[in-house]
Amino acid sequence: MTMQTLAILGTGLIGGSLARAARANGVAGRVVGVEHDPAHAGRALALGIIDELSPLTGPAVARADIVVACTPVDRIAGQLQAVAACCRPGTLLTDVGSTKLSIVRAVEEGLPPGVLFVGSHPLAGSDKSGPEHAGPNLFAGRVVVLTPTARTDPDTIRQATAFWQALGARVRSMSPEDHDRAVALTSHLPHLLASALAGMLPETLTDLAATGFRDMTRLAAGDAALWTSIFADNRAFLLESLRGFGATLDEFRAALESDEAARIAELLERGERGRGRLDWEA
Amino acid sequence: MTMQTLAILGTGLIGGSLARAARANGVAGRVVGVEHDPAHAGRALALGIIDELSPLTGPAVARADIVVACTPVDRIAGQLQAVAACCRPGTLLTDVGSTKLSIVRAVEEGLPPGVLFVGSHPLAGSDKSGPEHAGPNLFAGRVVVLTPTARTDPDTIRQATAFWQALGARVRSMSPEDHDRAVALTSHLPHLLASALAGMLPETLTDLAATGFRDMTRLAAGDAALWTSIFADNRAFLLESLRGFGATLDEFRAALESDEAARIAELLERGERGRGRLDWEA
Repeated sequence: MTMQTLAILGTGLIGGSLARAARANGVAGRVVGVEHDPAHAGRALALGIIDELSPLTGPAVARADIVVACTPVDRIAGQLQAVAACCRPGTLLTDVGSTKLSIVRAVEEGLPPGVLFVGSHPLAGSDKSGPEHAGPNLFAGRVVVLTPTARTDPDTIRQATAFWQALGARVRSMSPEDHDRAVALTSHLPHLLASALAGMLPETLTDLAATGFRDMTRLAAGDAALWTSIFADNRAFLLESLRGFGATLDEFRAALESDEAARIAELLERGERGRGRLDWEA
Repeated sequence: MTMQTLAILGTGLIGGSLARAARANGVAGRVVGVEHDPAHAGRALALGIIDELSPLTGPAVARADIVVACTPVDRIAGQLQAVAACCRPGTLLTDVGSTKLSIVRAVEEGLPPGVLFVGSHPLAGSDKSGPEHAGPNLFAGRVVVLTPTARTDPDTIRQATAFWQALGARVRSMSPEDHDRAVALTSHLPHLLASALAGMLPETLTDLAATGFRDMTRLAAGDAALWTSIFADNRAFLLESLRGFGATLDEFRAALESDEAARIAELLERGERGRGRLDWEA
């Protein structure tokens, strides 16, 4: 695939990396950036990540071939709706939001005829942020989940798949519901657990918190405001995961209360097997 | 301090590292090893980690100046009781068990007059095991918790402190109860959570488990049999930690169910602050 113009909404780490990856892989000749933070915008221009800065509904975005929203999950739907209303037929819209159901529903709702849209979620990130940390290899070898619905045209899926594959990603499709249920378990629940655990440690015991505790609380350092939006957006599935996790904790509790070593061993072995499958995939 | 003979019970990663560290720091001229696994014993001798292999109650152990039990927590007390019954007055006994209350109670119970004992827990380890991975720097800069009781002689504490400090460790004292309650929170609960989470992941979703999920389940790869002993030994305090954690999860659940973004943010910020204190100490 070769493309004339890519518009990125948000020029932070993800948007910036997307621009760099698209350029490095020859899929974008020109990159337009939309960025409300003047400091970010200035750096993205100075670093050559974007060629041009544009208002969200400016002509440069309206003429883009592909528009990718790389802003926080609570802003994506509104931005894509605004772009959809002014772009040309045949423009491909997508996003990188880590929740999909509410975004996909909102954008599909008012999608003008001929404008293509499918949700995306690249499983890629960094503990750094800002355009200065953007790199062209952020998506290489990573999984990108596409979330088509019954309303998604097969050609839209093909175009979005080709776009992400050109950046080196592996593409997997599932419904927005299945996606949100899956990431509630693989991403949002772990974040919640890390946060709950980190919040329990009294200051007097910080020197007893060794590698294991540090591994288990690393996620808790993530930006609280950003994660509040994600949790709020995916709260139904997160609650479902939390209930499942609570049931597993209850099994451990019962085994400990009745001092059943064999049952404790069984539960720990289940965890060991689960973790073993993961390493196999790594 | 200078010492004639160190006896290590168990010549695996911890015992082997202890021997190497004691030699490297000039605190042991001679190291006697007790090891029931012939393969481990052979390697420990071949690698020069121990000078001599001895039965648990053999004369070489009975003549040692300091005896450190580096075996799994469910074997430590029995071994130290056996050594205590045959060693000379003035011998210092200690251990590296990651739980302390049951070990300390059992060993103090029948301690012959003149034999010195205090429990130790070095917060040091590795995901590797066996004497071939033992190194002299395992304890350098690490915290070692000593767990004296009302029955512990101050001179015993001084000797044990000097021993661990000579290996480069930072020594902290607390009661066996306080220790076990603390590690239930900082070590055993994290292990339980990692295991519970790893056990929940369906095989169909392994490719969606990114860095965060991997961090949060790394501990689950630990040896299930070893951790069953630790959980069984510390089950009262582990249950206490689990109840505390359950209460925190309930707070998250209530905030999610009632869709209170401000409350979710507050809980996430508490985790962020807790994790922040930890980095400060690192």
